[in-house]
Amino acid sequence: MKIILNPSTERWEDLSKRPRMDKSELEETVRDIIYSVQAGKDNAVHSLSAKYGNHVHRDLKVSEKEISEAKEKIPEELKKAIDIAKANITKFHSGRIPAEPVIETTTGVKCWRKSVPIERVGLYIPGGSAPLFSTLLMLGIPAKIAGCREIILCTPPDKDGNVNPLILYTAGLIGIKDIYTVGGAQAIAAMAYGTETIPRVYKIFGPGNQYVTKAKEMIQQDGIAIDLPAGPSEVLVIADKTANPVFIAADLLSQAEHGPDSQVVMLTWDIDLISKVKAETDRQLKELPRKDIAEISLEKSRLILLSSIDECIDFSNFYSPEHLIINTIDPLYIADKVINAGSVFLGTYSCESAGDYASGTNHTLPTNGFAKSYTGVSTESFIKRISFQEVTAEGITNLGPAIMLMAEAESLQAHSNAVSLRLKRLKDG
Amino acid sequence: MKIILNPSTERWEDLSKRPRMDKSELEETVRDIIYSVQAGKDNAVHSLSAKYGNHVHRDLKVSEKEISEAKEKIPEELKKAIDIAKANITKFHSGRIPAEPVIETTTGVKCWRKSVPIERVGLYIPGGSAPLFSTLLMLGIPAKIAGCREIILCTPPDKDGNVNPLILYTAGLIGIKDIYTVGGAQAIAAMAYGTETIPRVYKIFGPGNQYVTKAKEMIQQDGIAIDLPAGPSEVLVIADKTANPVFIAADLLSQAEHGPDSQVVMLTWDIDLISKVKAETDRQLKELPRKDIAEISLEKSRLILLSSIDECIDFSNFYSPEHLIINTIDPLYIADKVINAGSVFLGTYSCESAGDYASGTNHTLPTNGFAKSYTGVSTESFIKRISFQEVTAEGITNLGPAIMLMAEAESLQAHSNAVSLRLKRLKDG
Repeated sequence: MKIILNPSTERWEDLSKRPRMDKSELEETVRDIIYSVQAGKDNAVHSLSAKYGNHVHRDLKVSEKEISEAKEKIPEELKKAIDIAKANITKFHSGRIPAEPVIETTTGVKCWRKSVPIERVGLYIPGGSAPLFSTLLMLGIPAKIAGCREIILCTPPDKDGNVNPLILYTAGLIGIKDIYTVGGAQAIAAMAYGTETIPRVYKIFGPGNQYVTKAKEMIQQDGIAIDLPAGPSEVLVIADKTANPVFIAADLLSQAEHGPDSQVVMLTWDIDLISKVKAETDRQLKELPRKDIAEISLEKSRLILLSSIDECIDFSNFYSPEHLIINTIDPLYIADKVINAGSVFLGTYSCESAGDYASGTNHTLPTNGFAKSYTGVSTESFIKRISFQEVTAEGITNLGPAIMLMAEAESLQAHSNAVSLRLKRLKDG
Repeated sequence: MKIILNPSTERWEDLSKRPRMDKSELEETVRDIIYSVQAGKDNAVHSLSAKYGNHVHRDLKVSEKEISEAKEKIPEELKKAIDIAKANITKFHSGRIPAEPVIETTTGVKCWRKSVPIERVGLYIPGGSAPLFSTLLMLGIPAKIAGCREIILCTPPDKDGNVNPLILYTAGLIGIKDIYTVGGAQAIAAMAYGTETIPRVYKIFGPGNQYVTKAKEMIQQDGIAIDLPAGPSEVLVIADKTANPVFIAADLLSQAEHGPDSQVVMLTWDIDLISKVKAETDRQLKELPRKDIAEISLEKSRLILLSSIDECIDFSNFYSPEHLIINTIDPLYIADKVINAGSVFLGTYSCESAGDYASGTNHTLPTNGFAKSYTGVSTESFIKRISFQEVTAEGITNLGPAIMLMAEAESLQAHSNAVSLRLKRLKDG
């Protein structure tokens, strides 16, 4: 961990740099995968899975029997934990789409919006050592609350063709039945363009490796929406001398263990805290099963001393962290001034893990500084809003002349005619 | 205009196809422009404007004097029309970001969200024959309502270096003072990466030619957000025998005059209406100043006979039009069943021009079928929502064991430690 003392503001840009992901070389490979799936559909998906996925050939669709059998394999205690998380996530994500009023902007001109769920959405859950069933909760629950008619899930199986029972159990719990055993860029392409077995969707959600990320970026150019641009996960902690270094170290490590490109930053205006946190991080690191990963990520991590609480807030807003932990005596003072962050954790006991799993907030968040303009996944991510307007004869009489003048000033005569022909008819009676 | 009678549902996909935009050849040119601006900043912007923009060298920033002088050049009547539009757009776009409640998901675990305006946004208004001051109203008003701190505008000047006074007047009216005389891909690059004169922004809005569109697509891959993916404008009209063919023809033409790639579709289950609309469209077309443009776009346009009102609704939802005009005796019957559309116009007097200028709804809408998953620009487009959680000692005691079980099931021990170390401290007292 690098210790940086009182950096000048000119250095902030550099200190906020994330590891640059060079994705240019992937483009050709992923484009080929997309073209293959568009042309060969199911057959292409099978061949690509054999080539890249390295698992035995199996049905693309998971059977009801597989889903119901998964239930037997989950310990009761873990099921109860998942129930708690599900209940909290449901509470927090409900009621987010209030009905909106009809607004009469001019007499005879009524305007309103209707919120409508996106009909078909696709969720992607990567494979690998850890089954990310928590991400399935974070995507599937708001999709259900929004009322999406068709929610499909793609996830790669293990080498024997089995999907992790925790993923199947969680999907079953949320009510997702259409599960397909495909991973990688071919999964994204299949959901974007459809195959004989896998239906086409209009928006794709979920994390993945660099191939998945690149595929999501590319299908977006064909108008298929995606949840968020991708980037490595990160946490920024603001702490004062009242914070417990043991907790800070644990929070930093819980981010560092995610992956070798994770970002971990602590800001403080208490110089003593820096050495304490450093020592405690080194101590806790030794015990971790994912020590090797955390170690790589910690190498690029920073403990930064700034001059004051307000300078810490300014730096944090400049950095725009995905996760922001405020471990100070008066966290609300800082919370009020936060303008760029994904999810914020206030006080001694609000560890990031709480939000990762069970507090109720969503853990699919803008990384890489994207919190400057993006919101994390929410129920709104699964709906769109359609505008309506009803203009009566009185309405067009009131508003028509203004429309005609503006249309003509933009040299759009036919726009003006659409009004004048109606006004003429009203005048002629 | 092509007349299509009772197409089978297998033909719907084909009938919904938009003109394919091949943007691959642009990529290299636009990438070069972006690299030039990143490296050369203001100087590069000037050279690129000289090369592509074809206007005299001038200050990049519009002076206060230019803005105030523009006011004198606008006829009073047009000013009043713009005032009406501004008032209606303001009414419709206000009050869209209600404060959200704090939710205690578990005793001791409070979660909420805070809506925050995006700090810096950039608006782009293209040049060309018609000054799109209406688009400036549609983007600038919600940006102001959202409370964005820095709103900049880029727009190309005419060959003498002057910005259209209507654009300057409208910007002044909304309160936008930072106006830069640059167009094309170099304007998008300048706003995305910043130059000495033009500040960097976090989200870019506005229409443009294929270079602008490609540049927006490319900067998005660096995490700069954009309003919507681009596509040609389009209208779909659903009409029954009660509809006036004169009005329908005028509405179709008001879309067709936008550009040669505009899409115009009418659906009906009344065969007589088709020939009436066709004849009336031909008649009105002859009188239009933009006849040549409208003619090209009408060549690809379609008048489609379907079997029933419900089949028309199904086709419309399948097509997902940017603008949907419902010119039938009971438009609300159809409105209730609309699930994919950008903006909907109900009844005889609700012409698309009303929404384009002054009804109050936004006219920056999802085209090209993107209404399946995207919403048009609204006040929400200028904000993001940050999640907060405050977990007390009681909260972590209640929720901690569930978090630990889930983290361990995902093989993330450090996530579990962040909780267990806190629980231990509470137990040890």
